Formats: sequence, C-alpha cells, structure tokens
Amino acid sequence: MTKASRGNFFEDFRPGMEISHAVPRTVTTGDVSLYSALHGMRFPVQSSDAFAQSCGLRQAPIDNLLLFHVIFGKTVPDVSLNAVANLGYAECRFLAPAWPGDSFHARSEVIGVRENSNGSTGIVYVRSTGYNQHDDAVLSFVRWVMVNKRDKASPAPQGVVPQLADIVPGDELVVPASLDFSGYDRRLAGSTDGFDDYKIGEKIDHIDGMTIEEAEHQIATRLYQNTAKGHFDAVLQQSSRFGRRIVYGGHVMNLARSLSFNGLANAAFVAAINGGRHVNPAASGDTVYCWSEVLDKHVVAGRTDVGALRVRTVATKDVSCAGFPDPQMEEAASVLLDLDYWVLMPRFGESGRGDGQ
Amino acid sequence: MTKASRGNFFEDFRPGMEISHAVPRTVTTGDVSLYSALHGMRFPVQSSDAFAQSCGLRQAPIDNLLLFHVIFGKTVPDVSLNAVANLGYAECRFLAPAWPGDSFHARSEVIGVRENSNGSTGIVYVRSTGYNQHDDAVLSFVRWVMVNKRDKASPAPQGVVPQLADIVPGDELVVPASLDFSGYDRRLAGSTDGFDDYKIGEKIDHIDGMTIEEAEHQIATRLYQNTAKGHFDAVLQQSSRFGRRIVYGGHVMNLARSLSFNGLANAAFVAAINGGRHVNPAASGDTVYCWSEVLDKHVVAGRTDVGALRVRTVATKDVSCAGFPDPQMEEAASVLLDLDYWVLMPRFGESGRGDGQ
Amino acid sequence: MTKASRGNFFEDFRPGMEISHAVPRTVTTGDVSLYSALHGMRFPVQSSDAFAQSCGLRQAPIDNLLLFHVIFGKTVPDVSLNAVANLGYAECRFLAPAWPGDSFHARSEVIGVRENSNGSTGIVYVRSTGYNQHDDAVLSFVRWVMVNKRDKASPAPQGVVPQLADIVPGDELVVPASLDFSGYDRRLAGSTDGFDDYKIGEKIDHIDGMTIEEAEHQIATRLYQNTAKGHFDAVLQQSSRFGRRIVYGGHVMNLARSLSFNGLANAAFVAAINGGRHVNPAASGDTVYCWSEVLDKHVVAGRTDVGALRVRTVATKDVSCAGFPDPQMEEAASVLLDLDYWVLMPRFGESGRGDGQ
Repeated sequence: MTKASRGNFFEDFRPGMEISHAVPRTVTTGDVSLYSALHGMRFPVQSSDAFAQSCGLRQAPIDNLLLFHVIFGKTVPDVSLNAVANLGYAECRFLAPAWPGDSFHARSEVIGVRENSNGSTGIVYVRSTGYNQHDDAVLSFVRWVMVNKRDKASPAPQGVVPQLADIVPGDELVVPASLDFSGYDRRLAGSTDGFDDYKIGEKIDHIDGMTIEEAEHQIATRLYQNTAKGHFDAVLQQSSRFGRRIVYGGHVMNLARSLSFNGLANAAFVAAINGGRHVNPAASGDTVYCWSEVLDKHVVAGRTDVGALRVRTVATKDVSCAGFPDPQMEEAASVLLDLDYWVLMPRFGESGRGDGQ
Repeated sequence: MTKASRGNFFEDFRPGMEISHAVPRTVTTGDVSLYSALHGMRFPVQSSDAFAQSCGLRQAPIDNLLLFHVIFGKTVPDVSLNAVANLGYAECRFLAPAWPGDSFHARSEVIGVRENSNGSTGIVYVRSTGYNQHDDAVLSFVRWVMVNKRDKASPAPQGVVPQLADIVPGDELVVPASLDFSGYDRRLAGSTDGFDDYKIGEKIDHIDGMTIEEAEHQIATRLYQNTAKGHFDAVLQQSSRFGRRIVYGGHVMNLARSLSFNGLANAAFVAAINGGRHVNPAASGDTVYCWSEVLDKHVVAGRTDVGALRVRTVATKDVSCAGFPDPQMEEAASVLLDLDYWVLMPRFGESGRGDGQ
Repeated sequence: MTKASRGNFFEDFRPGMEISHAVPRTVTTGDVSLYSALHGMRFPVQSSDAFAQSCGLRQAPIDNLLLFHVIFGKTVPDVSLNAVANLGYAECRFLAPAWPGDSFHARSEVIGVRENSNGSTGIVYVRSTGYNQHDDAVLSFVRWVMVNKRDKASPAPQGVVPQLADIVPGDELVVPASLDFSGYDRRLAGSTDGFDDYKIGEKIDHIDGMTIEEAEHQIATRLYQNTAKGHFDAVLQQSSRFGRRIVYGGHVMNLARSLSFNGLANAAFVAAINGGRHVNPAASGDTVYCWSEVLDKHVVAGRTDVGALRVRTVATKDVSCAGFPDPQMEEAASVLLDLDYWVLMPRFGESGRGDGQ
C-alpha cells in the first residue's frame, strides 16, 4: 500500500471521531512579517511591540486571523483535502493570546455528517481547537465542508446535524489577560474613533482596493501549511469546475480585514467569528474591495476601556463598495465574502479616554 | 460622516502644520529577511551579525533604505494618498542606528505649499522624521509631492517654498556609534576596493539586471505599510494615466542599491540622500539596470578607517547601462531613477588597511 | 578598470585554487519563515520548536536544504556566474546542526578542470564547505559546472578529473548531536511510517503538484543571495537558448522535498546528497510533481531510535508521477530533477517505538 495519502472521503467521517492533526508549528516574527506584508496589515497592537506594551501586553501578539489560518491549515489534510467547498464557519472563539515563538498544534472532533441527495457528496461538520505548547486552547471553531464520497455506492450514514449558535454571545468574548486600553494612543493608531463613536446600523465603505497575484495567495496559503490542491496545482485545476487555481478563502478574509483598517482602525482584536460564507471564489487578478456594517455593540462588564463591536464585512471583486452591495438582498456575482465577527475596540467616550502614550 | 479617510488634499496643508503619523511598527528580523529576499541585498554589515560584530556593532543593523521606506510608508496616508507624483527628496539624513526589534513612529512638518498654475493641483513640501521607541530620531528627510486639490475653486494659499540644501554636507554625516572598520574583512565582503580606491568622476556599470514582478513590488510596498493606491488597485489604475499599477519608486531604489553591490560592495551604509528623482515610473515586467558615478569624496575627520563617497546612481529599464545613459544630458525615456547619496565605506589605503581576521 | 565583476571564466580556474566567498550571512527565523512559505515545508522537526525539543534538540534547526542553498548561493559569483549548466552534485554531507541566528560563510577548492572538445567551454569541479560563526564546518559538497571560456583561443589546461564517490557511505552519515527520536510523536508528525516500514525498492507517488510563479522562484533565489543572471534578467534571457528566465534548480529540489512529505513525512533530516541532476530546466508556470524510490536502508550503529533511508526522488513538470517516469529508462522531456540522497528517519519498529507524549 502506498504511504502517500489521498485524504479522507465522506465515508471516513463519523460523529464523535477525534482527529489529532499534523504538523506542529512555531509561529515566529518571520511568519508575522510575511503575513503582514502579504496583506498590508496595519492594526497597531499587532504591528508594534512598543504600542502593545502601552496596552499592557508583553509584546505584539500574533494577529488573530494568522492564528486562525495556521490552525485551519492543520485541519486541511485530514478534513478537507477532498472538499468540494468550504460551506461555513461558526462559533469561532479566540481563547487566549498567542505570541511569536509559541508552538501550535490542533485537534478536531467530527460533530455532524449528512449525505447529500445526489449520493456523491456529503457535508461534514467539525469542531477544531488549536493549542499552544502548554496545551492551552487558544482558538476553537466549527466549520462544515462538502466532501466527495470515495464510492457513490457506499450507504448513507445516519444524518447528524449539530445545533450551532448563530452568534457567539457578547458576554462570552475573551478579553486578553492584562490588556488595558486606558492608555491607547489614538493619534499613533490613526483614528480617533473608538467603541463609543460607532452606531448600530452604521455602514462604512472602506474605499481602497487590493489586486491579488498568483504568487501572493500561494505564498500565503503555504505560510499556513494549508495543502488544499485547488490553490497550488494549475494542471489539476484545468479540469476543475473553475478551470484554474482559486484563492484560499482565508486570503480574502485577510485582505478584507486589512482594508477595513480604513474606517475601523481601532478594531484591535478579532474576538470571535460568528459566521462566514465564501459567496464566490476569488482568483488571481481579482481586485478586492469591502464594506462593513455595525450589527451590534457589547459593553464589556466591569470595563470602561474596551468594548466589543459586532461587525459584518462584505468583500467584493472588481467593483467598489460605495453602494454597499449586499448578497442577502440581491444578485451577488461580484461578492466574495460575507463575514460576521466581533472585534474588541478601545473606548474613548467617557472615563477610558486615552489620548496619550 | 464616514469614518474611512480619503486622505488630505492640497487645501488641507498649511506651512507649520504638524502631523503625527500612524502606524507604529516594530521592524523584526522577519522584515529584514523579506526585504533582503525581495531585492537580493548582499552588503555584509546588514547581512551578517558576525560581520557586523567584527565592525564594532552589536548585531546586523536594519538596512538604511528599509528604515527609510518604513518611515516613508507612515507618511503616505497623511501626505500623499492623493498625490499625482513624488517630485523629489532632499536632506535625508540617517541619524542613529536602527536595530531589529526597534519600534518606529514618525512625525512630519509641512514646510511649504505652492499651488500650480492649472489651479487643480499644488506642491506640498514636508519634513518627516522617524523615531525609535526611545523617541530618538533615527532618520529625517524632506520630500515634495504634487497633490490634487479637493475643489478647484478653492483659493490658492500664499506660496511658501522652502530653501533646501543641494547636498548634505559631508561633515554632517553621522557615522554609527561604535562603528570601527579597522578590522573590516574585504575577502568576506567580496571586494578589495575601499574608499581610497575610488576616484571622483569614476563611472561604474553595475552590469546585472533584475526583472520586477507584480507580486514582488506589492509585497515590498505592503512591507512598508505604504497604502498608495497606484501600487495595489489594478481596477482603479485602468483609468489612471498609466492604465495599470505602477511600482513604488522606492522599490526601484532598492533594486538599484542591491545591483550596485557589483562595483560598490563595500558601500556599507547609506549615510544621506542628497536628492532623488523618479524620472519615469516603473511597472511589472520592467528589468532594472543601473550605473553609478563617484561625485565627491569626504574624509571623515579623525578617522582612518572610514570615509564617505558621494555617489550618483542612475537606474534604467530594459536597457543595459554599459553606455551610462544620463537623464541630465539627453532623452531619458528608459531612465527610472536618478539618485544622489552619500555612502560610508571602509578605508584600506593607509593605516586603516583591514584584511580581516 | 571597472570595479564590477563579470565573474570567473574557465581560464580562471586551476586545480588547488582556494576561494573565500562573499557574503557572510546570518540565517534568521525570518529566512526560515520565507523559505517554508515559498515551498510549503511541513517536516515537524524544522517546523516546531516544541517538537524539536521533544527530539532532544534545543530548537527547530535550519532545514538542511535551506542551508545548502545559502552556502551554494555564496559560491555562485565566483564559480558559476558564467556557467552554461550545473552538471551535477556529489559527496554532499551535512556535518553539524545549523540554528536560526547562526552566521555562515563559505570557502571552496577547485578540484578539477577539463576543457570541452568544442574549445569554448570547460568543466570545473569545486568542493565547497560552509562554516558557521565558530568556523565549524556545517556542510560540504562537490559540484561541477560547465563554464564559458573568456577567449576561445586560450590553451586548454591539463585536464584533472577528481575521483568522486558514487554515494556517501551510510556509516559516514552524521546524526545531529543530542538527537533522540525515542519520543518522536508520530501522530503529530502526520504519519505512522518509520524507518522499519519502508522496503528497498518501494516506490511512492507523492501525488500533489505545485505550480511555480516567477515571483516565487525569484524571491527564493534572492533569499539565498544567489546572483545567477538566468533567474532574474528577462531581457538578457531573451537571447539565451531558453528565451526566458529559468528557475534555479534548487527551487525544484525544495518543491520536491516539500511534496515528498506526503509519503515520507518522517524523513526528518537530509543527511547527505549522493548525486543529483537537473534533467531539464524549469520555468514559471511549470507544475512540479514527484515520486520516490527507496534505494537502500542503513541501520545506524548503536541506535534503535533512528535509521537512514537512501531515497531517489524524481521530479517532473506538468505530468503526474503515478506512472513513475524514469529518466534512466526512457525519454525524459518532462523530468526536471533526479536526486539521490540519504534521510534520517525515526524507528518505531522495535524498541524505539515512539508514540509520543
């Protein structure tokens, strides 16, 4: 028997199954640098050790999305190598700060399976957790993917569909230990707008666009040790339904997060992802734009320095977001991503006002 | 009012105005690695901790141009987001060594404004200074940019044009503290030519060429957190006068500096930039070549181990520099850059002779 | 005389000549990160400090091939700037672990020269050795290249062809000091197959493919400070026999090593390279696949935790390796690389069984 793996097929998954993923990984300042330069990240807490220290942290932490992609990447060879599509995310929580130099590994539990009526694919629901070198959980999320069956004739399993929360409740968001935004320097951060300046329902066009190059998304995806073939193998992809390599959906997430700095500069941390959908695949040459809407606000109990905004960010390709194109309302051929998440943001409104260093 | 910024327009600048720029940034060995690999840097003091230590430094310092671009990048969202062109640089001085792990921020002062006769653009002069986490100034420079007016009907301000030095005087150049080139190992460095081997008027064809890829200049420009749209947004650029993305002028500077190693291998530090002009824009697919001329030599008072060469480097696209094409003498359609700068170089001629350990 | 070098020509080499190469280089975690992301490396000892420590090492070491390319790169300006082709490698031994933060330099000895019958080129044999900052040898290898003559009329030197070993004997392989695979965690590593599970003659199709982009191979090659013009100068290459930039052969080696993880996940170290041949050049757009054959097995004296496999890996372009295309048996227009090397692999078979903590 060959020792090379073709990955798991739908028949290989059953509810309750536990998977310990390869490969352990130390995330270094080198990884942070590459991640930042691939997307143009500018959030100051992750950009500057000195700024992070002025917020009570020991150094600039690893960007939440970088951590997410590193953990996600570990699950790919076991969960989604034969996936037709990433269908959605839910209950993604960032549980503890992650620092350059930490070593991460990941485990998953299969929490649902459901064969599709076509008999050739099925949906697999998995809860994945990332751990650091102390085995502390740093991140947990659910995703579901459509996976090919190895053999169309194999019988359908009893369907199990997990009950998933629509949103992560605001009072379950984790504020990083020792974080103190009372001295947050708005001038250095690039915007005077804090938690108290945003209104529920407010929409923001983030204006700027960023064009994706083939080398960029490949380097980014390999940075996460994500092995999904659709992103790397141009020959194989010629016979796919896209006819070409497609961009890892997480790359579009990162570009949207980076572009959202212009309007959400003080959205310092992603605390949770409530849900997300890759509405259409992206490819090299696409130019990504995005807009955001404030869906909700959560006052963190006992804190005047930090609050949480629930934000929806929609990313498009090749068309400006000045008109706030909404895939929930209309045809959405140009929409790439519809993401619902919580960010932690400093409060400047009342006692927490922080103009200084 | 939207919280996303469209940047400042000509009307927003007035002489004496001070700007504190976002975003603070720690430059790590990861940033250094990416910078080096994007351009092929080989100057030994910046390449090797061991070599830097043999020159009296605590470790390999951050390359002067990397520092320049990081500080420059911070000024873009405030100064040149609506710039039509970067017109020139002057009085750029490197004031103190910068080390991996240092955190940088930047402030600028507007030192001149002058509306153009067309009434739709104006020139803004800005002096920008970069600081480390101790608030020590590490770099200072003047640049002037042509910026669009928001409203053509707004009245022209009283013109102020600053007096700028043609060159940074040699006796104002800063030799990094503790630097000692008396043990500089020429064999390891790759060339036996030191300060005393160069003659004023000497011209050097650096021979080699390097072709620019779209992904490379985008990654480089994002590494500096430079947000200028012309480098990233292919859709927007279709309607620009170039019709496509153009390369950040600083990327051409870096390629020229890297290529100049072949002929100026011991030009260990850029100590100052006297002036610079982006003669033509570069685009993906252009192959960069360059040549240099020694404009002047400065003996550093009290030092036998180090001297300063004033060098002019001209970069071209798609044509070899064997004929030393000169934009000051002729048609210069193929010239990209004309840069006048001071480098610090070890002296091997007399008592400082350093054949290394 | 110009100070820029055009490199050495065939006439410049004579047996016994010693060359001290520029430029010294510190390899940082930033370099490791970029190297990993450019190829998708996943071998756990090099990927995770925590995993490396569980194997008795102080931290994740520098990947053997990264070290090889860094040392190789130093030799290019002196040895192969005017090379027509890299003809082969032999006797490549990894002698001591290399760690992020180490500073490397290289020296070479010319061990053979032989003019070709056409009178315009010759073959140069060089033994190159890489050293760390303590001047400990970390790597040694022989390569031979076909180099242009400067002047066809110059007389042929007396030919000297060195005697080179077909393979590095198994009992000369260096197991890194302090390495202890008795606690190697197979689950985390991604495969249960260890030394005892492989049979001589066994072939493995590594299945996956990876498409090369122009920006990727250029960034990789500059990461090693390799200055060979064929990889960077699209204008010059228009008049070459390829008509375009070609990919540094080492980049294909790296892709093959990375892809070989799927089937050789526990091939933790490259201990030696017995021989290698770039059968055809690669170019941007090529999709690399590979397969491997186990050529031999070597039991390390006195060790139950580690053994050595002699592996041959063949890389192709644009065609799957399911049929194990063999350039030694047939037309090989689609074969890029034929590499013969030793890997160190944990033993799980008998007493060394390591299911990890």
